[in-house]
Amino acid sequence: MHCIDLNSDLGESYGQWRLGDDAAILPLVSSANVACGFHAGSPDVILATLRAAARGGVAVGAHVAYPDLVGFGRRNMDLSHDELFADVIYQIGALQGLAAAAGTRVRYVKPHGALYNTIAGNERQARAVIDAILAIDATLPLVGLAGSRVLTLAAEAGLRTVAEAFADRAYHRDGSLVSRREPGAVLHDPQQVARRTLQLLQDGGVTSIEGEFTAIAADSICVHGDSPGAIEMARQTRALLEASGIAIRPFVEMP
Amino acid sequence: MHCIDLNSDLGESYGQWRLGDDAAILPLVSSANVACGFHAGSPDVILATLRAAARGGVAVGAHVAYPDLVGFGRRNMDLSHDELFADVIYQIGALQGLAAAAGTRVRYVKPHGALYNTIAGNERQARAVIDAILAIDATLPLVGLAGSRVLTLAAEAGLRTVAEAFADRAYHRDGSLVSRREPGAVLHDPQQVARRTLQLLQDGGVTSIEGEFTAIAADSICVHGDSPGAIEMARQTRALLEASGIAIRPFVEMP
Amino acid sequence: MHCIDLNSDLGESYGQWRLGDDAAILPLVSSANVACGFHAGSPDVILATLRAAARGGVAVGAHVAYPDLVGFGRRNMDLSHDELFADVIYQIGALQGLAAAAGTRVRYVKPHGALYNTIAGNERQARAVIDAILAIDATLPLVGLAGSRVLTLAAEAGLRTVAEAFADRAYHRDGSLVSRREPGAVLHDPQQVARRTLQLLQDGGVTSIEGEFTAIAADSICVHGDSPGAIEMARQTRALLEASGIAIRPFVEMP
Amino acid sequence: MHCIDLNSDLGESYGQWRLGDDAAILPLVSSANVACGFHAGSPDVILATLRAAARGGVAVGAHVAYPDLVGFGRRNMDLSHDELFADVIYQIGALQGLAAAAGTRVRYVKPHGALYNTIAGNERQARAVIDAILAIDATLPLVGLAGSRVLTLAAEAGLRTVAEAFADRAYHRDGSLVSRREPGAVLHDPQQVARRTLQLLQDGGVTSIEGEFTAIAADSICVHGDSPGAIEMARQTRALLEASGIAIRPFVEMP
Repeated sequence: MHCIDLNSDLGESYGQWRLGDDAAILPLVSSANVACGFHAGSPDVILATLRAAARGGVAVGAHVAYPDLVGFGRRNMDLSHDELFADVIYQIGALQGLAAAAGTRVRYVKPHGALYNTIAGNERQARAVIDAILAIDATLPLVGLAGSRVLTLAAEAGLRTVAEAFADRAYHRDGSLVSRREPGAVLHDPQQVARRTLQLLQDGGVTSIEGEFTAIAADSICVHGDSPGAIEMARQTRALLEASGIAIRPFVEMP
Repeated sequence: MHCIDLNSDLGESYGQWRLGDDAAILPLVSSANVACGFHAGSPDVILATLRAAARGGVAVGAHVAYPDLVGFGRRNMDLSHDELFADVIYQIGALQGLAAAAGTRVRYVKPHGALYNTIAGNERQARAVIDAILAIDATLPLVGLAGSRVLTLAAEAGLRTVAEAFADRAYHRDGSLVSRREPGAVLHDPQQVARRTLQLLQDGGVTSIEGEFTAIAADSICVHGDSPGAIEMARQTRALLEASGIAIRPFVEMP
Repeated sequence: MHCIDLNSDLGESYGQWRLGDDAAILPLVSSANVACGFHAGSPDVILATLRAAARGGVAVGAHVAYPDLVGFGRRNMDLSHDELFADVIYQIGALQGLAAAAGTRVRYVKPHGALYNTIAGNERQARAVIDAILAIDATLPLVGLAGSRVLTLAAEAGLRTVAEAFADRAYHRDGSLVSRREPGAVLHDPQQVARRTLQLLQDGGVTSIEGEFTAIAADSICVHGDSPGAIEMARQTRALLEASGIAIRPFVEMP
Repeated sequence: MHCIDLNSDLGESYGQWRLGDDAAILPLVSSANVACGFHAGSPDVILATLRAAARGGVAVGAHVAYPDLVGFGRRNMDLSHDELFADVIYQIGALQGLAAAAGTRVRYVKPHGALYNTIAGNERQARAVIDAILAIDATLPLVGLAGSRVLTLAAEAGLRTVAEAFADRAYHRDGSLVSRREPGAVLHDPQQVARRTLQLLQDGGVTSIEGEFTAIAADSICVHGDSPGAIEMARQTRALLEASGIAIRPFVEMP
């Protein structure tokens, strides 16, 4: 493992409302998951985000979501295949249009929030997302939870898949994430998270909350930019990785 | 004049709500202005419309609008250049994405409703729309009111422009439309509208409400599909044109 | 049983989009469930509906829904207690305001679509709706599926409850509705539905899809106005009830 | 002048997005203009704001706006009388419902942003707002720009009117506000703004940008809470007023 991708969610402001410190996180990551207007991201905000990503040489992905602005895409919604299929294409297309105007292009798709979690296991919704990518551009990789069902289905359907891990989240021994509602689910110490990221890459897994090692094959690590603490965590993670000889590069530029 | 384009607004349903009889109007026109989600058109509705247009061999345009679903894009909104610029690109991109999934592509841009009327004269908003097209795809023609300022600005900026006329609307002698609030502004008799369309194409203009001839150089004629009467009007117009040796063809296929 | 309430969903148009024939169904019912803007009903549409209900002497209820305009409130959404609590109060309040302007007032609450179905069994969401009614006006009755859990919880919380039955839907022997996805779930013959309504009221139940009698204690019968067939069904139902000596009266005027 | 009202805009967060420091500004003002969901304010945010206002003994007003979430209600919209009329009632009603749940009630109406500015001069829209207040509760006072046309129309229609002044804005000698686009339009020094507020109350006017005194009869002074600087300005203003023997009281409690 000589290089790894760091991805983060960007463009999550909306009109007058600001969210996240995109200017601070952008230099720290190699891939930017850009909101597409359904959970966040008004068109002017998206465009500014894409321009910044283009300037910074960061790869851009479509952070597609449920149509739930007030809930920030964090609430499960029981969409039909056809509804979700069209919603995902609409969002990717809108981002592609703005990316063209910003001098860059959409390189991958990463579902957001509740949609991300739901398709990890729900086959109907997973297929809708996969079918949408196949319909608009079958060369776009799909980012999903390492070890999740959606990645298997996507690979079977012929999509390139990208397995994502979360260095600031606790894992169970079966490789699933500990629910945020449980104690110890989220790690807050930047040093600890940085070291955990390094462990993840060097050992191919982490120590689970039950105490045993669990293997996680990660193609990309998710970092956050929505608080000063999160940015410090990303900074220390990147610094430790680079000091350990691991380069930060967009997964779309790896073979 | 051996051929002309007939265009109509399609895809203006939204979720459970139906509007217009797309199946009836589609075989009668050569260009379909498809709603992009801001004034009408949920993604599933747009996709179904694009598939029908693709099957029917009808050229597809982006019917971009103000972000005003409840007002159906018919109310003036005072957007800044940057807001409108990003909104228009977002809509064109979304439609391009769905068009790719439907096996067709976006061939032109026609602003809708209040945006259409405003940019006929308002230079700031006109420039935002023009700049948006230049930024996403400078080869897309812009459809606008025949004789309006926006077409001059668009041509100066290097866009192909398409002048549109309304055979069911009364014109003043200066070539402007009679306001819908005035008596006689809208014609309702299918036979009269069909003959007026023929006059428009053969004579290069129509008799104005003041009684004098006014020249109108039209590249496309707008017909409606939102009522049985409107569809009958379109049917008779097309029949009379064809009987007079004028073929109906998308303007994007003309030189 | 000398009188019964007939209720129907009204005000489900939105801006330019029309849905349902409110003018036709209004004279046939005693209670109008009026959309509150979250699944349908723009403010101008709601106001017109309330004015018509006031003129017709029909009782008005708040047809509260998930915030899902594009999905017409028909898709399950996993809202927290606090989100749903505030959403329901917001909608009831908005309707109360418009009702005051229309010279009438909100007399009850009937959840719509997916929310209606979900709270029949989901205790967290049921409590959010109940708590919302208690918070804004504890005298408002709650209409729910006859025999459902939400009505028990509401009664325990001190709300008046109104059990609703569907004469055009098949029931299982345990009193639950046959899913719309199964054959025979929905009845389409107006005469059959009218007779079934009469049976429901005179016998206190209907023949289930399994062939056995199932008891249903109904305070109100739901009829539809979204198609000519539905309106004919409502007309025949009302005519048969009245011919059988059963008066149609709002449940809010019954003891 | 022994007492004055200080008002501020609150509840302008939306879902996950935060805007303004409501907790800091609330103890400094006597009246809270609470967003109603059209330009800002999701129901859960509104409810939390109303509960805080109730605890703090601050009077609550409905900060009604155009239906323009992405534009934060700051863009002019050309609504018809009937559309605006219904929109305003809907918003006041929704806020009344949430206020009841929070143990308080709506005491006045203050239009927001572009609507505030437009009705200062546009008679059609002014009448729509006035008619809406008359229709839902004719005892609610209307807050508007001191000296503006809408206050005259409202008074003629029988509404109580409240003239508002802005101590951090420059005025022309005719009493109109200097446009934000012009230099010197907005004052940023807390001390200067505090002294200017005192001058406004003691002298009945301020020095205009042209250098002459202009009379402004103000019933309420608007202060802001959307930045640390704004809150410091409000703090110093309140401190100077109280040190000068002027009490801060809601205008709704004055005769």
